[in-house]
Amino acid sequence: MNPVELIRKKRDGQPLKAEEIQEFFSAYQQGKIADYQVSAMLMAMFFRPLNQVETRALCHTMIHSGKVLELSAIRLPKIDKHSTGGVGDKTSLILAPILASLDVAVPMISGRGLGHTGGTLDKLESIPGFRVSLAAGEFQAQLQRLHCALIGQTEEIAPLDKLLYALRDVTATVESIPLIAASIMSKKIASGLDGLVLDVKTGSGAFMPTLEKSRELAKTLKEIGEGYGKKVMAFITDMNEPLGFAVGNWLEVQECVDCLKGEKVRDLMDVSLALSGAMLLLAQKCESLEAGMLLAEKQVQNGKALAKFLEIVEAQGGDRSVLEDGSRYPKSRFCAALHADKSGWISQIDAREVGLCSTLLGAGRLRKEDAIDPKAGIRFHQKIGDRVQAGQIILEIFTDREVSVQPVLAQLNAAIQISPEHVQTSGKKVLEMIG
Amino acid sequence: MNPVELIRKKRDGQPLKAEEIQEFFSAYQQGKIADYQVSAMLMAMFFRPLNQVETRALCHTMIHSGKVLELSAIRLPKIDKHSTGGVGDKTSLILAPILASLDVAVPMISGRGLGHTGGTLDKLESIPGFRVSLAAGEFQAQLQRLHCALIGQTEEIAPLDKLLYALRDVTATVESIPLIAASIMSKKIASGLDGLVLDVKTGSGAFMPTLEKSRELAKTLKEIGEGYGKKVMAFITDMNEPLGFAVGNWLEVQECVDCLKGEKVRDLMDVSLALSGAMLLLAQKCESLEAGMLLAEKQVQNGKALAKFLEIVEAQGGDRSVLEDGSRYPKSRFCAALHADKSGWISQIDAREVGLCSTLLGAGRLRKEDAIDPKAGIRFHQKIGDRVQAGQIILEIFTDREVSVQPVLAQLNAAIQISPEHVQTSGKKVLEMIG
Repeated sequence: MNPVELIRKKRDGQPLKAEEIQEFFSAYQQGKIADYQVSAMLMAMFFRPLNQVETRALCHTMIHSGKVLELSAIRLPKIDKHSTGGVGDKTSLILAPILASLDVAVPMISGRGLGHTGGTLDKLESIPGFRVSLAAGEFQAQLQRLHCALIGQTEEIAPLDKLLYALRDVTATVESIPLIAASIMSKKIASGLDGLVLDVKTGSGAFMPTLEKSRELAKTLKEIGEGYGKKVMAFITDMNEPLGFAVGNWLEVQECVDCLKGEKVRDLMDVSLALSGAMLLLAQKCESLEAGMLLAEKQVQNGKALAKFLEIVEAQGGDRSVLEDGSRYPKSRFCAALHADKSGWISQIDAREVGLCSTLLGAGRLRKEDAIDPKAGIRFHQKIGDRVQAGQIILEIFTDREVSVQPVLAQLNAAIQISPEHVQTSGKKVLEMIG
Repeated sequence: MNPVELIRKKRDGQPLKAEEIQEFFSAYQQGKIADYQVSAMLMAMFFRPLNQVETRALCHTMIHSGKVLELSAIRLPKIDKHSTGGVGDKTSLILAPILASLDVAVPMISGRGLGHTGGTLDKLESIPGFRVSLAAGEFQAQLQRLHCALIGQTEEIAPLDKLLYALRDVTATVESIPLIAASIMSKKIASGLDGLVLDVKTGSGAFMPTLEKSRELAKTLKEIGEGYGKKVMAFITDMNEPLGFAVGNWLEVQECVDCLKGEKVRDLMDVSLALSGAMLLLAQKCESLEAGMLLAEKQVQNGKALAKFLEIVEAQGGDRSVLEDGSRYPKSRFCAALHADKSGWISQIDAREVGLCSTLLGAGRLRKEDAIDPKAGIRFHQKIGDRVQAGQIILEIFTDREVSVQPVLAQLNAAIQISPEHVQTSGKKVLEMIG
């Protein structure tokens, strides 16, 4: 194999054969091809998007670059959910215990937040003591016993994806749908599940800015998964405003606990129940999506989902007492409110800006090595469509960084539009189902 | 400066500012940006070709990455020629002494052959003792005294170009006209000349496969040079068959000596005289291109060009006795002839194939580190348009590699077409002048 000839071939618009993709990227993992050749190849792949055969071959190479988890000892349907990332996107913490409480195994391998988006691992780690790194045996044992374990990606699963992602991140080659799809699916398929529900976000706070691109990504993800014999359902959900009222790790965990206690945070629960319903359908626990959603809702109402969540937290070393009594949690040094500067109806809350503000308050990372302040974040009192009076509180911010308070309030004020007219909004966050 | 943002900007089709190009590539030279980021940028530049401003900025950065030669002490017009590379392309060895014999300084900095093309340095080094590395002082002194010195690129001139070329070579990012043009012109402008004549080859044995691309390259080169206040003339010349009858380093030197002795190798002399005429015109030694060509021809006829060539060879340590008596040169161990397999007219001699065959015989390099056999090569007896009888010798090959003899003869046989019809050929190699 001549790596330069393969780069040239791809550059010139000829599709690569599956074996060529496999040889090229395996050689990279083995250190036989240099970073600078792979980054040139990735840029060529940005301009000449991978076709279905190439995408599958890349995904396949990444899956087999490490260990494929063997979960057949667990005799339950194994269903996971993946979200492409958003702001205030905390559905995992709600749906995982719902599913586990209904005898569906949820082997959930999550990521961390970067840029304006949050990550499930950071949210879990805001619970004092919570361990997201379980050894393989521990992970399987907990999955067997509690039907759910919430962990981070290990070095063993799809290590080539990790290598490639790090390279794409510093060479402006992230934004390619086939590359994104292969990356996501390699980790999910290697984690040994039977079915996957995809939550592809669209809108200002999503990585895919347009509905069209989101659909394309959803379809590509579905195709890859089904090519591996997995059951896949995909939803496009709205990420123009943050999901729920809380943005920031501990604030979001609290909101999830509130929801599991039965509080009706409408947009958040609509998405969580749709995803849960789909997962139950894939697990053959119901006949239809609607039946699954009702079943999921019942597990919240009867308290079983909350009980399961607390059980999981405890099993992974987390302090459940702070979940039961939030007043025991440390407080941010600074708290400030944003007041409406006029009366009217909230017509826009730019999710991306909210995410960036949350990061500035300490809740997220601008660089991978940044530390996170679990207490920091934003709590909304009003959302799009709500009527506000001049002077009324729209949101509160929480931070230990005094210097950030005023700039963040100003930035949030600019990110929120108040219209003198009543805004017609469906409030619908689940926009469509793909396939 | 954020290198990832600059790559993304270029990738997304926004032109970079001159300062951004300069900052990015200077930082690379200083080791502050990694190879893998630069190769991704180069691939983005392949897909989004540099505009005039960007191309100039890149060239400028390369020029000032090293030393710019100061030749103002030499009070003669300083004119050089650059060819984009071909097979049997040996005009430098003919025109440099012609010009020097007419009091034009020719500070010629040449390259080596790679792939199917030859390089002037390799040809010169086939002369026993010839030194192509002169110290800066020695180079200037010889230029002052003999009006010509023939050397290789030094580490001091445009080192960034060298770095970038090495990276492009292994990342399939060579074939971009603005990148090629900036690379060529950076070295030429840094070598302190007043005028430059460009020989842009077109056809099977050239790097630019189409006439259109060759024109585009010629125009881009001319634009850059003129932007630096240099006088530039550009020709497009044919490279569908090899130039002259000899291909291979020592064989080509001998052919040049024959031409300087007055032998009329028509295609080779047509190109050499056109380029010489243009150089004389730029040096203001004549009123028109035609007058310059006549002047050049006179220097061959009166023996002054040959005398100058022998003087230069001697000054650079070369053994002039082998030039005067070729029988003293070592002989190849194997010599074989290709005979016409039918009668007719030669209608095609694929220059690229001939170049590759010459490399297989030992005359060229497949990799930069390969050694060269100066004796090896091909001598044609017939060329396109010539009539041949079945069994007549078309060419002879010379090599020390016994294993190559039969395969190369077969490959050459396939590269040569004999037509039963008389082939109409103008024999014209200088196709057009640009601008």
